Amino acid sequence: MKKGFKNLALTTLLLAAALGHAQQKQQDIDKKVDALIAKMTLEEKVGQMAQITLDVLCKGDNRFSSTQPLTLDDAEMKKVFGKYHIGSVLNIAGGQAVTPQKWYELISGVQKASLATDKNKIPVLYGVDEIHGATYTDGATMFPQEIAQAAARNPKLTELGASITAYETRASNIPWTFSPVLDLGMDPRFPRQWESFGEDPYLCSVLGVAMVHGFEGNNIGDAQKVASCIKHFLGYHAATSGKDRTPAYISEDALREYHLPSFKAAIEAGAQTIMINSGVINGVPVHANYDILTKLLKDELGFKGLVVTDWADIENLHKRDRMAASDKEAIVLAINAGIDMSMIPYQYEVFCDNLIALVKEGKVKQERIDDAVRRILKVKYALNLFDKPNTNPKDYPKFGSKEHQKASYDMAAEAITLLKNEGNVLPLKKNIKVLITGPNANSMRTLNGGWTYTWQGDKTDQYAAKYNTIVEAVENEIGKANVTYIPGVSYKAGGHYYDELADKMDEAVAAAKNADVILLCLGENSYTEKPGDMNDLYMSDLQTELAQKIATTGKTVILILNEGRPRLISKFESNIKGIVQSYLPGNFGGDAIADVLFGDVNPSGKLPYTYPRYPNATISYIHKPSEEQKKAEGVYNYEADYNPQYAFGHGLSYTTFSYKDLKVNKASVKKGENVQITIVVTNTGKVAGKEVVHLFTSDLYATSVTPDVKRLRRFEKIDLKPGESKIVTFELNPKDLTYVGRDGKDILEAGDFEISIEKLKATFTLSE
Amino acid sequence: MKKGFKNLALTTLLLAAALGHAQQKQQDIDKKVDALIAKMTLEEKVGQMAQITLDVLCKGDNRFSSTQPLTLDDAEMKKVFGKYHIGSVLNIAGGQAVTPQKWYELISGVQKASLATDKNKIPVLYGVDEIHGATYTDGATMFPQEIAQAAARNPKLTELGASITAYETRASNIPWTFSPVLDLGMDPRFPRQWESFGEDPYLCSVLGVAMVHGFEGNNIGDAQKVASCIKHFLGYHAATSGKDRTPAYISEDALREYHLPSFKAAIEAGAQTIMINSGVINGVPVHANYDILTKLLKDELGFKGLVVTDWADIENLHKRDRMAASDKEAIVLAINAGIDMSMIPYQYEVFCDNLIALVKEGKVKQERIDDAVRRILKVKYALNLFDKPNTNPKDYPKFGSKEHQKASYDMAAEAITLLKNEGNVLPLKKNIKVLITGPNANSMRTLNGGWTYTWQGDKTDQYAAKYNTIVEAVENEIGKANVTYIPGVSYKAGGHYYDELADKMDEAVAAAKNADVILLCLGENSYTEKPGDMNDLYMSDLQTELAQKIATTGKTVILILNEGRPRLISKFESNIKGIVQSYLPGNFGGDAIADVLFGDVNPSGKLPYTYPRYPNATISYIHKPSEEQKKAEGVYNYEADYNPQYAFGHGLSYTTFSYKDLKVNKASVKKGENVQITIVVTNTGKVAGKEVVHLFTSDLYATSVTPDVKRLRRFEKIDLKPGESKIVTFELNPKDLTYVGRDGKDILEAGDFEISIEKLKATFTLSE
Repeated sequence: MKKGFKNLALTTLLLAAALGHAQQKQQDIDKKVDALIAKMTLEEKVGQMAQITLDVLCKGDNRFSSTQPLTLDDAEMKKVFGKYHIGSVLNIAGGQAVTPQKWYELISGVQKASLATDKNKIPVLYGVDEIHGATYTDGATMFPQEIAQAAARNPKLTELGASITAYETRASNIPWTFSPVLDLGMDPRFPRQWESFGEDPYLCSVLGVAMVHGFEGNNIGDAQKVASCIKHFLGYHAATSGKDRTPAYISEDALREYHLPSFKAAIEAGAQTIMINSGVINGVPVHANYDILTKLLKDELGFKGLVVTDWADIENLHKRDRMAASDKEAIVLAINAGIDMSMIPYQYEVFCDNLIALVKEGKVKQERIDDAVRRILKVKYALNLFDKPNTNPKDYPKFGSKEHQKASYDMAAEAITLLKNEGNVLPLKKNIKVLITGPNANSMRTLNGGWTYTWQGDKTDQYAAKYNTIVEAVENEIGKANVTYIPGVSYKAGGHYYDELADKMDEAVAAAKNADVILLCLGENSYTEKPGDMNDLYMSDLQTELAQKIATTGKTVILILNEGRPRLISKFESNIKGIVQSYLPGNFGGDAIADVLFGDVNPSGKLPYTYPRYPNATISYIHKPSEEQKKAEGVYNYEADYNPQYAFGHGLSYTTFSYKDLKVNKASVKKGENVQITIVVTNTGKVAGKEVVHLFTSDLYATSVTPDVKRLRRFEKIDLKPGESKIVTFELNPKDLTYVGRDGKDILEAGDFEISIEKLKATFTLSE
Repeated sequence: MKKGFKNLALTTLLLAAALGHAQQKQQDIDKKVDALIAKMTLEEKVGQMAQITLDVLCKGDNRFSSTQPLTLDDAEMKKVFGKYHIGSVLNIAGGQAVTPQKWYELISGVQKASLATDKNKIPVLYGVDEIHGATYTDGATMFPQEIAQAAARNPKLTELGASITAYETRASNIPWTFSPVLDLGMDPRFPRQWESFGEDPYLCSVLGVAMVHGFEGNNIGDAQKVASCIKHFLGYHAATSGKDRTPAYISEDALREYHLPSFKAAIEAGAQTIMINSGVINGVPVHANYDILTKLLKDELGFKGLVVTDWADIENLHKRDRMAASDKEAIVLAINAGIDMSMIPYQYEVFCDNLIALVKEGKVKQERIDDAVRRILKVKYALNLFDKPNTNPKDYPKFGSKEHQKASYDMAAEAITLLKNEGNVLPLKKNIKVLITGPNANSMRTLNGGWTYTWQGDKTDQYAAKYNTIVEAVENEIGKANVTYIPGVSYKAGGHYYDELADKMDEAVAAAKNADVILLCLGENSYTEKPGDMNDLYMSDLQTELAQKIATTGKTVILILNEGRPRLISKFESNIKGIVQSYLPGNFGGDAIADVLFGDVNPSGKLPYTYPRYPNATISYIHKPSEEQKKAEGVYNYEADYNPQYAFGHGLSYTTFSYKDLKVNKASVKKGENVQITIVVTNTGKVAGKEVVHLFTSDLYATSVTPDVKRLRRFEKIDLKPGESKIVTFELNPKDLTYVGRDGKDILEAGDFEISIEKLKATFTLSE
């Protein structure tokens, strides 16, 4: 039983142990909720289902903006809480991070206003997108983004990171985070792929469970824990166009086979709340889909928590998707589909007045309202907000501490992925002169990506000035005198993420001749959501030009990638000997990159996605046999061409590992039995190193739908000294051998299966 | 009632008139078929369901190849027809076109061998992919490919072309063509988009019906008509990866809303046979999909004709898609799903022996076999093959005649689409000196595309040497002395379609200074099916380089596109004043292009697809509102970016047209009523011109699925003299206002609709 699996099992065990206590606690909460609901008016209930953004409550020119320094608007609060009984608030106002003290001032002010005007004394549920640390808190510990965490393949580090984020979120008086993203990140074009754990459902499940556990622990009433919000249920990244919030077509079997497992695992691990996919599946906006929100999520999966919309997504049913001829009709659709809370976020009167009217008209049933309010109040009770509506930063001495920072650095160091190392050009010696160039060389913004201090991450260089960019970290490593930095290309300030300008490109190329090695830092500027949509997966024209010109100097070039998604490098890759992928490694990414480059850290990251070679060849490693069809006999010699730049799971080390003795414990396995697989892995190189052992299965024939070529079922990250061997043991259970048939039901089918680990293969037969 | 609609209506009318006679004839055929089936053995029946490729019957080194000159192998024929009773043969042998006389020798030899050995005297049904003329017949009239015909928007010309192709196909002793392609060509990446009528279901329906009628007339027993084979049922071009024969995800409503209409219309127009999509939809290969082949096609649509596989697609269920653990299991799947005839094409023993065994084992029912054989024999009787198994070229004097060639030229002339004409740079004067450059300038191969004399179209320059390339046609137009031709870039002989080399590029650029105008002929080399798969939609690097270098000369550059799909030109388009799209215009395309360039023809083609600007922005004009979402209010100002290079329907003229007085005959329409729309179009320029008037509808709100932004419902091509006006009248019926709901059922919903013609809009309300 190996790490990924053990982690799931461990969680299950811990949950079981805590169950007796938890059951009692849940019963107490249920009683309180029932008593409270019994005395609430319709207006008060509808208010609980409403969530507004903080800008509405702050003084400013209008509802959409706030004046700095942020000040709460008492008159508006009186209306919001006194008249409309609004139950939830989200987001920062003014669009950028504030200190924990300011958060305390704002949220405790909100709670005070709410408790002062609401006869039921129901605290506000405050939520923020704390996706890689406490996003909007100045001084918080920013971790590598999820895509980097997936490369690290270390669930313990992911759990630790989430646990620290929970602590620092509570230090900001926030009890609820809209995290983790459990979407299958299977499309390199999608502007939020970096917010996911990549393209494999099992990887997303294992790390998703670790993250939920890190946020919630066993008791979100603990003032160091927060409620998580798994998102975006479901299939959000599968958009046909590759653009944010656009339509997807997903079959019933694909929805369940690929997109559901991570959510199912996280719900079983206790995730308290869930946010809905803003997009459209099979013509139907998910926010209006009863089959998905009620039948699948609430009935079949048994989700008992709170279902919240994404930003403005009830309005969007009318204004964007044209599924409803008015805001009022949109509200009927969404609430009856199964939405509990609307992230409105501005026009709360429209939502509340209409929903009240709809209940009175009988178009939304009272039971549906009560169910929604029950789910919301249960989270508020579970968070202990009735007893303790606020948490005070002074009680969180470890906020932004060295201990927390080390956890972020460790994750970055394990995430960095060595994609290419021709002639062992890496690690570099420390007595060399380097030229550093490229738009990502001296930027804290690009190391962190979106959702960092601001939505688009565009003010990170102000907030994170004290941390090291790549340039600064390399200077620390080999001395300022040995480092020349010329940008070559820069991102335009204040523009779109893709606006760039040539910035001393000729000087950079000329400076190459005085350097021993060139560190070429390419990638993307920060973005998220629709502003991050893209039209061309190639690395930008200017960066490609810089790479091609630098390559012609004949000097040793090391390419350091720092990007939210795999921008294509095939136009210059063959001229570059060493390539390091850093993803979005956070505030300590510069340090970790430098440590990898100069050998202080032996890289152990593995690609969490397929790195494509061409813009119109972006299929993920999970695909059907016809995507890589071999040459057929005869005159019509059809042949397919599956040719990624780097495969899912690829990642080199400064040492070498040998794999041998792949064994399956039985040649024939009866349905229902487990299967044990062992393999011996040896460090055959000269330095210690970590290696991720991946186990894939292939179902050789399947009768309901054409089978996937192969699927990841287990992985374990091991640490080996030079010369050391370890036997790695995996256990597969029947669930690992099933697939979802065309009717959406699991199928376990007799037949031959192939196990593959690295280049070794073994087979067994499943029999009745 | 306008042209597209009238055409459908006309067909219906003609069919109705012929119905009495046809019914009697069908009853006679049914009787004969029943009598024949009653005396056939199982082995004979299974043989009828088998189709092999001609190479099997020709002498050669092995079953997959044939020695030239082609000679039938009597021993193999004895086995094929005497022992296995094979009922159908397809394709040319040896992979390239032969003369009508050679076709007559081969097919009459096959018929003779079959009739000599088969006690039932059942003729062979011979089929060939005659997709734009008699593909594999030397001297046949090659027409513009379907994508060009779609640009011409002239159903009468399409019907005429199909009628000529039927004639020349019969002149080659071939009674059955695997044409037309009725797939929705909605993906610019797909290697067969050019074989389709483009991205609109209505356009595909109107032209599909015209083509079927041209092939079949009212009686395929007429020795100048052939049986058509509509293909590839269904959703073939919707592959997620954009590559041939790879998986697609299509929802029930999308399948019926977009992919079904063209097939439904062609079946209603009498199409005799249908070929199945080689790909996979929602995890299931269509060849194994009972719901699609039997429930939808045979039961719901009432298709009574013959269902044939595509090449090797039963084998593929085992060898490629891994849905069946053996060839035998694959046969069960396909035949029980509803396949009537297997295009095997080589290993007929495997198919026949296994299918016979399966019937004996009860795994395939005798009734299924009888149903399949009945469908096959009915086509053979309808084609009058029992009475007249051969047609002799000597009876077809108009084969390859001037009259036929003119029909091909006329279609090319109407197809060519003027995409850009800055400062009225076109038409050119005839007293100028031109430089012609680019890999498509002097090639008959590229003018024709795939399925021309050979599968990949790679021998066209040998077969079609007597027709004019663009260079030759321009020389004819303005005199050889005024034309300089330097390729700049050439396609490699014998390579992949995408293999290119720089070919005197510097000379070409240098020669520009002596020219008044440069004709830059870019595009693609010929291809089809999997060899035509692509990874990067941009115009090739070398052609882009040539375009950029030519543009820097400062001379007037006219870009002539000659390509199977819209290769991206955004990297140089802004530097080019005139752009002409010729698609794959056939053997008279060079002449038509020259006539357009120099003003002998006023262009009237309209884009049958969206011409994308970027490789990762390839959504078609039919899309949901979320693809072009407008800026939202508030801090998260999501904005979408729908920015094709040229829109569906775009196409300029040398004259100008004004649109005015768009009127709907009622402001409020009751469900079930028709709606009349009129508009006045005036030729406001100085030369006569043809204009295609497009009518789009928008359903402003829809409750079951999010509505399309707009949809083409009617079009009419009109011809206007300078100053002339015409009132164009369209009539919409209730079917035009329905959409397919998420359960696959048609929905006609009260509410507001918008009509748009050119830039004018009008609305009406549909009420209960």
